[in-house]
Amino acid sequence: MPGIIKERLFTPGPTPLLMEAQARTLTAANVHHRTEAFRRIMAETLELLKYYFNTKNDVLVFASSGTGAMEGAVSNLISPGERILVGTAGKFGERWLGLAEAYGIEAVKVESPYGGPVDIEAMKQKLASEGPFRAVYIQATETSTAVMNDVQSLGEAVKNYPATCLVVDAITGLGTTDLRPDEWGLDIVIGGSQKAVMIPPGLAFASISEKAWGLIAQAKLPRYYFDFAKERKNQAKGETAYTPATTLIISLHAALEYIKQLGRENLIANAALLASLTREAAQALGLRLFAARSPANAATAVCAPEGMDSGAIIKELRNRFGAIVANGQGSMKGKIFRLAHLGYYDVVDLFAVLAALEIVLLKLGYKVELGSGVRAAQEAYMHQAV
Amino acid sequence: MPGIIKERLFTPGPTPLLMEAQARTLTAANVHHRTEAFRRIMAETLELLKYYFNTKNDVLVFASSGTGAMEGAVSNLISPGERILVGTAGKFGERWLGLAEAYGIEAVKVESPYGGPVDIEAMKQKLASEGPFRAVYIQATETSTAVMNDVQSLGEAVKNYPATCLVVDAITGLGTTDLRPDEWGLDIVIGGSQKAVMIPPGLAFASISEKAWGLIAQAKLPRYYFDFAKERKNQAKGETAYTPATTLIISLHAALEYIKQLGRENLIANAALLASLTREAAQALGLRLFAARSPANAATAVCAPEGMDSGAIIKELRNRFGAIVANGQGSMKGKIFRLAHLGYYDVVDLFAVLAALEIVLLKLGYKVELGSGVRAAQEAYMHQAV
Repeated sequence: MPGIIKERLFTPGPTPLLMEAQARTLTAANVHHRTEAFRRIMAETLELLKYYFNTKNDVLVFASSGTGAMEGAVSNLISPGERILVGTAGKFGERWLGLAEAYGIEAVKVESPYGGPVDIEAMKQKLASEGPFRAVYIQATETSTAVMNDVQSLGEAVKNYPATCLVVDAITGLGTTDLRPDEWGLDIVIGGSQKAVMIPPGLAFASISEKAWGLIAQAKLPRYYFDFAKERKNQAKGETAYTPATTLIISLHAALEYIKQLGRENLIANAALLASLTREAAQALGLRLFAARSPANAATAVCAPEGMDSGAIIKELRNRFGAIVANGQGSMKGKIFRLAHLGYYDVVDLFAVLAALEIVLLKLGYKVELGSGVRAAQEAYMHQAV
Repeated sequence: MPGIIKERLFTPGPTPLLMEAQARTLTAANVHHRTEAFRRIMAETLELLKYYFNTKNDVLVFASSGTGAMEGAVSNLISPGERILVGTAGKFGERWLGLAEAYGIEAVKVESPYGGPVDIEAMKQKLASEGPFRAVYIQATETSTAVMNDVQSLGEAVKNYPATCLVVDAITGLGTTDLRPDEWGLDIVIGGSQKAVMIPPGLAFASISEKAWGLIAQAKLPRYYFDFAKERKNQAKGETAYTPATTLIISLHAALEYIKQLGRENLIANAALLASLTREAAQALGLRLFAARSPANAATAVCAPEGMDSGAIIKELRNRFGAIVANGQGSMKGKIFRLAHLGYYDVVDLFAVLAALEIVLLKLGYKVELGSGVRAAQEAYMHQAV
């Protein structure tokens, strides 16, 4: 039926845009970044980012994807010859290893199987027995497997090492997960714009604790564009060392105002509700959840039925219903599909994609009682929502 | 749960906007209407409107709501002392009677009960026995009751009267209903911008046959702003007699390009599919359809359960899910709610609002098997769509 098919993102980044925030950029086409007007926007945005990050620490903004700030969290903290500890259970955990390798830094790793969280006890043991480590790296939520890590426990442990920082990739964790950087000792927390903050790709964020600033002052790895100390000096004045992505920052400002109005905790609760409803629906449809333990709120990874390529589900969802859903990455490709909940999604979006998914599964030959996944989500909604 | 709630229009006007068409206006902020650039846009838009209307007749555009063109279809056709025939079965049919009264024109009416179509046989009889009438007025689809009228039969009948025109309010009929003005003898067909054409309110359209132009030349009722002959002369040159609503015309141009690409017949089939799925869902939920016969594709009017005010359903849909649905008008208020299908809606939108509706009905105390309405729509989709 060549009727109307609307494109709808259900991917864990980019995520649906808050159009009010996009609209704000239209009236700012002629803003120059070296002006008082822009400095005021930048300063307000940095304050709003502190609210979003739930921290009193400095938060810096970079014109880059999240990976840029991840690189900065290596190059700004470490000196040649120092060692780091990495917890990994997915493609994004492995990115920390790739960064260490690129800079010639020895990384000791705790590698947990895909589909489960990083073994935090094992990390604590290595901290105690195989140190010293200048920094410990982990994901708050591992997007590739849709698993949440216990960064609180890890933070409490790292606190005991005055010369060791904890770096948390919270690119999909922010706005979906309760994170308390100051209380838990998350020294550097990293975010990106195309996630729960509801704006397009192009900005990376990093919150940096006083403890981290102390270590940054000593660190000798080379850095230039992602020089945290240089940016700190500039951003304290509402400036940036290099040309900022002005329209993205204007969008960010507007989106963070929306999030502040909604409430950070409500944004997180929204993702948690959607994730929980999705798990109920998947199980009602007889589908296995890829994350058996500690599933993330940011996204839900669902296993394709036995013998079915998840790519076929994704293709049919896209062609038939315009619903864009993520495949698995690397070895998980073809095995899982991932439905995102981070940012500007509501329960109505979820009901919609579940109804579409049921039809797609049936069309692909999987036995589905139509409406049963939607019903499971509706019932969970009835129990959880007022 | 104070989470994210997106506002979603399900009303039969305004309807969801095609954002690509809205975006087009942003680059045209400085267009002046007395320029070659705008004349080209206007001329192309009028050609695209002929495609949309499925006619070779002139189509005129007015900066007004649809009612303005309805008024024009009275004031341009009739002379004092002449009589008209009006078919009515709802609030919009009654608007023709109001217009006749405002101009002091005697209207003979065929009034059929709300919830059914106008009795076309009765109109034919009156045409034969109570004439002469200068014009016959009817709706293609009566939006207040969500009923479709058989304008084809009426057109075939009016064709036999050389000095009588047929005027069809197709404000919600265009883009939702198979209409063939040239073949069926629909002399004047009226449309509005905030309907299936997917742009905001503010424009009215009227297609006018050669037969109608002949009568317009003789008609003596007063008119100035809605002077069809004056506009015809101007619009033939890509001009308008008075300042055109430039941004709306630029949106219209873009939206009509989208519709041409999609295909007029596919746009109509899309509304027909959504209407049919909605009827299946309503009946599966044990809800009565207000239009027992000849339901429109433009919208579906559903009766609230016995003893429940439809206003409560509408309020809860809006507050809980951001879904904006129309109440009944006049005596139907509180008794029905109307789900629209005209324009930029897809099946995923429908699944979404049905899931929300089920929860709302259950919350309001109506016994609903959650998922059963969605399932009925899904099953109908499986049967009807490829």
